[in-house]
Amino acid sequence: MEFEDLVRELRAIRISGNIQAMENLLEQVLMADIADALQLQLAQQTFRIQEVRDLLLLMSDDSAAALLGYFPPDLQEKLVALIETSRLARLIDAMPHDERADLFNLLSEEAQQSLLRDMSQPEREDMQQLAAYEEGTVGSVMTSDFAILEALSTAAEGIKQLRQTGKDKETIYQAYVVDDNRCLVGTVSLRDLIMAEPEERILDFMVMDPLYVRADEARELAAQAISKYDLLAIPVLNAQNQMVGIVTIDDAMDVASEEADLDFRKVGAVGTIAGGLKEASIRLLYKKRVFWLVLLVFGNIFSGAGIAYFEETIEAYIALVFFLPLLVDSGGNAGSQSATLMVRALATGEIIMKDWAGMLGRELAVAGLLGATMAAAVSLLGIWRGGMEIALVVALTMQLVVVVGSVIGMSLPFLLSKLKFDPATASAPLITSIADACGVIIYFSVATMILDIPAALA
Amino acid sequence: MEFEDLVRELRAIRISGNIQAMENLLEQVLMADIADALQLQLAQQTFRIQEVRDLLLLMSDDSAAALLGYFPPDLQEKLVALIETSRLARLIDAMPHDERADLFNLLSEEAQQSLLRDMSQPEREDMQQLAAYEEGTVGSVMTSDFAILEALSTAAEGIKQLRQTGKDKETIYQAYVVDDNRCLVGTVSLRDLIMAEPEERILDFMVMDPLYVRADEARELAAQAISKYDLLAIPVLNAQNQMVGIVTIDDAMDVASEEADLDFRKVGAVGTIAGGLKEASIRLLYKKRVFWLVLLVFGNIFSGAGIAYFEETIEAYIALVFFLPLLVDSGGNAGSQSATLMVRALATGEIIMKDWAGMLGRELAVAGLLGATMAAAVSLLGIWRGGMEIALVVALTMQLVVVVGSVIGMSLPFLLSKLKFDPATASAPLITSIADACGVIIYFSVATMILDIPAALA
Repeated sequence: MEFEDLVRELRAIRISGNIQAMENLLEQVLMADIADALQLQLAQQTFRIQEVRDLLLLMSDDSAAALLGYFPPDLQEKLVALIETSRLARLIDAMPHDERADLFNLLSEEAQQSLLRDMSQPEREDMQQLAAYEEGTVGSVMTSDFAILEALSTAAEGIKQLRQTGKDKETIYQAYVVDDNRCLVGTVSLRDLIMAEPEERILDFMVMDPLYVRADEARELAAQAISKYDLLAIPVLNAQNQMVGIVTIDDAMDVASEEADLDFRKVGAVGTIAGGLKEASIRLLYKKRVFWLVLLVFGNIFSGAGIAYFEETIEAYIALVFFLPLLVDSGGNAGSQSATLMVRALATGEIIMKDWAGMLGRELAVAGLLGATMAAAVSLLGIWRGGMEIALVVALTMQLVVVVGSVIGMSLPFLLSKLKFDPATASAPLITSIADACGVIIYFSVATMILDIPAALA
Repeated sequence: MEFEDLVRELRAIRISGNIQAMENLLEQVLMADIADALQLQLAQQTFRIQEVRDLLLLMSDDSAAALLGYFPPDLQEKLVALIETSRLARLIDAMPHDERADLFNLLSEEAQQSLLRDMSQPEREDMQQLAAYEEGTVGSVMTSDFAILEALSTAAEGIKQLRQTGKDKETIYQAYVVDDNRCLVGTVSLRDLIMAEPEERILDFMVMDPLYVRADEARELAAQAISKYDLLAIPVLNAQNQMVGIVTIDDAMDVASEEADLDFRKVGAVGTIAGGLKEASIRLLYKKRVFWLVLLVFGNIFSGAGIAYFEETIEAYIALVFFLPLLVDSGGNAGSQSATLMVRALATGEIIMKDWAGMLGRELAVAGLLGATMAAAVSLLGIWRGGMEIALVVALTMQLVVVVGSVIGMSLPFLLSKLKFDPATASAPLITSIADACGVIIYFSVATMILDIPAALA
């Protein structure tokens, strides 16, 4: 179905309130595409939020829950405020356990209480537990509806059990064997169940001592383990070594993508805008960006002060100003390159804190070569614009600023990480500002020494 | 097993050549961890590549193939050169179809020919076909060993067939129904097969008209579709609409991560270093970085020339130099922020070309507010350092450079994309250089106008 047709159809269904027409539509169109279409209509203000709510109410609980799951948190929040509690309780009941815990956290205290009253006790406890995990932890992205099998069952019995209990499980492709204390004993894949002889016991072919993550660890760890070991899901244990959930590969893929987004934005000095760029309001974008821009202005005051300090040198050799942006920026550029490489490698777990010394040695070698190449290039420009002495000044400065900039750029992410900040805070603009200030001082210090002029203001 | 113990054990096994000890070790330790340990030993030069080869030869073909699959291309290339062809043919036979096609492309022409002679005809044709897809396409990451079922089979028959044929398949969790021309008719998940009544016919519950990608499309498209629609695998069609392979979610996750790496490095102006940072040689890092650094030097010459053009203005008002880095960098910083947001959103498919106009309007609003805030801040600094006139100059300049920088930063990725370049080429350093040159001209033009001084060299 073409996009315009889909929107027209949705509009018609809302006006007619025809439940059957909605069912027919859902058979033809993927939910992710309907979610996309509705979000775009909302962004273009050709649909009001009440109309989306009306459409949602025309769907079965399962469909409505699925649609809700595709929406970003802010839209979920607005929608659920427009749905009466008894219907909302049914919707939330139909959602995967991890998504409904996230949704629960968006509700007002009052709405949370009235919702909890409408739920059965085990469901209520499960949701409260999941909702309690801090943002960014494994617990916040895991789901508690995983499949459990008995170690002493046969393969055939295991498959039969999955048939009976699997409907509500997030995945049946991995099942878990736990002991009486809910401690994890082994995992078994549906593939192995199918491939085993029907009479074989699960105990005999399950994977013992499987990999796991802890609920309070960083969510990236679950994503990294799933990617590295090619898993479809990884079990999650609590502090008492009890199995409390699983993280599935599709959630891991979302986590990896969100983390890459966040790092990208930090490196670009935009701060942590969670969620999509299209949905971000002007106010949010302004707020996130102005912080860094103003902060960097203060960084640049150091460069300005450096220049002011050397005003007499500049007045004596005004030709030096020609090379200022070129030399100073080269240090910042080399530093940004190093920082980018380190930030990403630290984020993906490719390098860790103790690699710093080894990386530093390599960085010095690379930066030394880079600096020498650029010094050679820029010295030609120096001869042409100002003669041999100027050429010497700019070449020496170039060599120094590239090495200093690179070392700052590669070390800052490690330093930030050591101080428990996110290494991605070492954004290109931040590195540039620091390297600029160093560059100004290096440049005019070298110039003052070589050109033999009185050294600035008393 | 602790890391040091693992290394010691590997060393002992290599010296003793004890195949049984190797088998025992493989039962206790995950292959990904052995691959990690060996790579680290190689990087630290405490293991030679011949020793890794010896260990590989002590493993069964399946294990050796799995280990080989964990190594990066350059290491694979060095290793296979040390293995005799007949053993290599067996190893390659045991690898997943997608991995072995990649490995095949690393071999010398001569090695390729002798390897092909050792393979059966269908295997040979399959590998040649997979190896022929261009790097970066869906074809280059897909696998051709997918499970096929008959539409008229029952669910029970389907499961039985997967048991018999599934051993060599990359996944049995998704199976495909094709017609006599190998055109894709439907997909069926193992979950649905298990949940269906044993006598139900696959035709009656398979998903018709499933999503697919084309073998010659960009590999990101497969990853994006898998992530968006929560698929475990997506079928791949050739130009004749025949089904030629599948991309599985674990490969999609690797693709998404590699693409994020590449974008990160481009935005950091490091170029496209494929593979890990730790394995990258000093030579490679130098080569990739020097290109951008030298290019940016030439960009900065424009800024220098701008400054030289306004030398008289600067000599008359030397105080202006104090504000130079601050004003000029602010434009670059605002531009880097915009570029980062756009590059990532374009890469993940969140925004597309036609969104440019809409984005521009919002960018102007945000940049206008940002510029006004920063102009207010910097005008105070201007009054303090140089009086009212200077304050007016710097405030007006700040407003202009932030807006101009932001518009350049947000538009360049779109422009590059339009010109068929990768939008990620719009790196922070590139934006900074362009914004710097604009900033210099804006600054001194504003200064010349307001301060009423003779306009530079004739």
